Amino acid sequence: MIRFKSKVKVEFYDTDAMGVVWHGNYVRFLEKARCDFLNFVGYDYYQMGKDGFMYPIIKLDFKYIRPAYFKDEIEIMVTLVEYESCLKFDYVLTNAKTGVKLAIASTSQACVKMGSSNLEFQTPKSMQDIFKGFIK
Amino acid sequence: MIRFKSKVKVEFYDTDAMGVVWHGNYVRFLEKARCDFLNFVGYDYYQMGKDGFMYPIIKLDFKYIRPAYFKDEIEIMVTLVEYESCLKFDYVLTNAKTGVKLAIASTSQACVKMGSSNLEFQTPKSMQDIFKGFIK
Amino acid sequence: MIRFKSKVKVEFYDTDAMGVVWHGNYVRFLEKARCDFLNFVGYDYYQMGKDGFMYPIIKLDFKYIRPAYFKDEIEIMVTLVEYESCLKFDYVLTNAKTGVKLAIASTSQACVKMGSSNLEFQTPKSMQDIFKGFIK
Amino acid sequence: MIRFKSKVKVEFYDTDAMGVVWHGNYVRFLEKARCDFLNFVGYDYYQMGKDGFMYPIIKLDFKYIRPAYFKDEIEIMVTLVEYESCLKFDYVLTNAKTGVKLAIASTSQACVKMGSSNLEFQTPKSMQDIFKGFIK
Repeated sequence: MIRFKSKVKVEFYDTDAMGVVWHGNYVRFLEKARCDFLNFVGYDYYQMGKDGFMYPIIKLDFKYIRPAYFKDEIEIMVTLVEYESCLKFDYVLTNAKTGVKLAIASTSQACVKMGSSNLEFQTPKSMQDIFKGFIK
Repeated sequence: MIRFKSKVKVEFYDTDAMGVVWHGNYVRFLEKARCDFLNFVGYDYYQMGKDGFMYPIIKLDFKYIRPAYFKDEIEIMVTLVEYESCLKFDYVLTNAKTGVKLAIASTSQACVKMGSSNLEFQTPKSMQDIFKGFIK
Repeated sequence: MIRFKSKVKVEFYDTDAMGVVWHGNYVRFLEKARCDFLNFVGYDYYQMGKDGFMYPIIKLDFKYIRPAYFKDEIEIMVTLVEYESCLKFDYVLTNAKTGVKLAIASTSQACVKMGSSNLEFQTPKSMQDIFKGFIK
Repeated sequence: MIRFKSKVKVEFYDTDAMGVVWHGNYVRFLEKARCDFLNFVGYDYYQMGKDGFMYPIIKLDFKYIRPAYFKDEIEIMVTLVEYESCLKFDYVLTNAKTGVKLAIASTSQACVKMGSSNLEFQTPKSMQDIFKGFIK
């Protein structure tokens, strides 16, 4: 398993009329954290595209525990839990200051060959090797 | 069970650089469909607030099946599957023209007394009665 | 001049922690109204693309007059004020119920040949003819 | 005049189907930069609220020059150009790597006493003093 800690700061535009972060905006936070993770590993969406694959999200699950507010800093612990059949990430979001857990989430991304619309049974070996290099 | 069919049209701003609707924007579609449902039933967020309760989203689950594109019309079948302990809605999203299933989703909302931060074990009877009136 | 009246309904996700529509979300309202206008005229972004042109926004001006709230219906009067050198639209946004003026805005879109990054001095004659047909 | 340099990184969700940052998303970039500025000065929205005032955006002007892409870093130079009658900021957005100018913009915020809906002719002296302290 590979872990990476990312951070987002709640902006005013993230809030809704209840005065808290609108629940749908957390999907942006996850994507930022996931891309930070992939940057860290050195295999981003551009590289995926060059290799001829894309990874659309096929599953998204969220559990919201406590609200977040304007100017809060949110720490996002991202864990890659599966990369051979698909890309599956788990996320734990906590208030960076208080340590209070705000939400947990997970996303799954299928592997699709560019120009096709079929899912691959296996992710490309080149990508698997990159992740394996990190785990060792 | 109460059912309601809502509709959204994909706008250009809903798309991302893959040329399809960005997965996070579906959360907006669900919220629109859910609020259309509550309008239909005659019990919206304003009425909830007047009754002293709010209903934050505590769970959100998505399964994405096929992509949607700019100008697509998406039909959203909303089903209220639980309203006594919390508000739980199921959603089926289909392309309005082709009937192709795009995604399924569900959301759960806890009942919280305004000014408190505790979850109620039961939703208010007044709200339950409104839903019951529709089921009969 | 060609005029077209579009409508948007304020959703909960449009609001911010001040309890009103977040000012940036009006840009979405304009785009929806503009696309509704182009649909009405029968010349949408897909057709533009087939003709080999795209029309990026190069200017955006907003004057906000009164706030809008969750569930408000907003009427958007769109006027095409220039289409020979660029596409320029003016917008007047009013509360559909009270008639109160909420905002005025304007957008300009340059004409760019696909694959190039240079601005055209003139929009394509085929598009000009469509608009002229409407004005007569 | 007070200047402050902020930065944003383009996320995937910022892009649209043309493969570039959707023009409306720049409004978020401005807000982030403006709030970073106010943090730097030590007078944020929370403090404004405690002092009994709010500062809704009443004007927004944008000129878009070059597109930005996923993973670009954008530098935003924010300049406070007026703070006695209202808050007016100018913004220059450049690609942090290449120095290419992407957009210029300006926003104006009226001063409104909380609970009222009238504009104040002058911003509160306490706020003016904070800004004056920075200029000296």
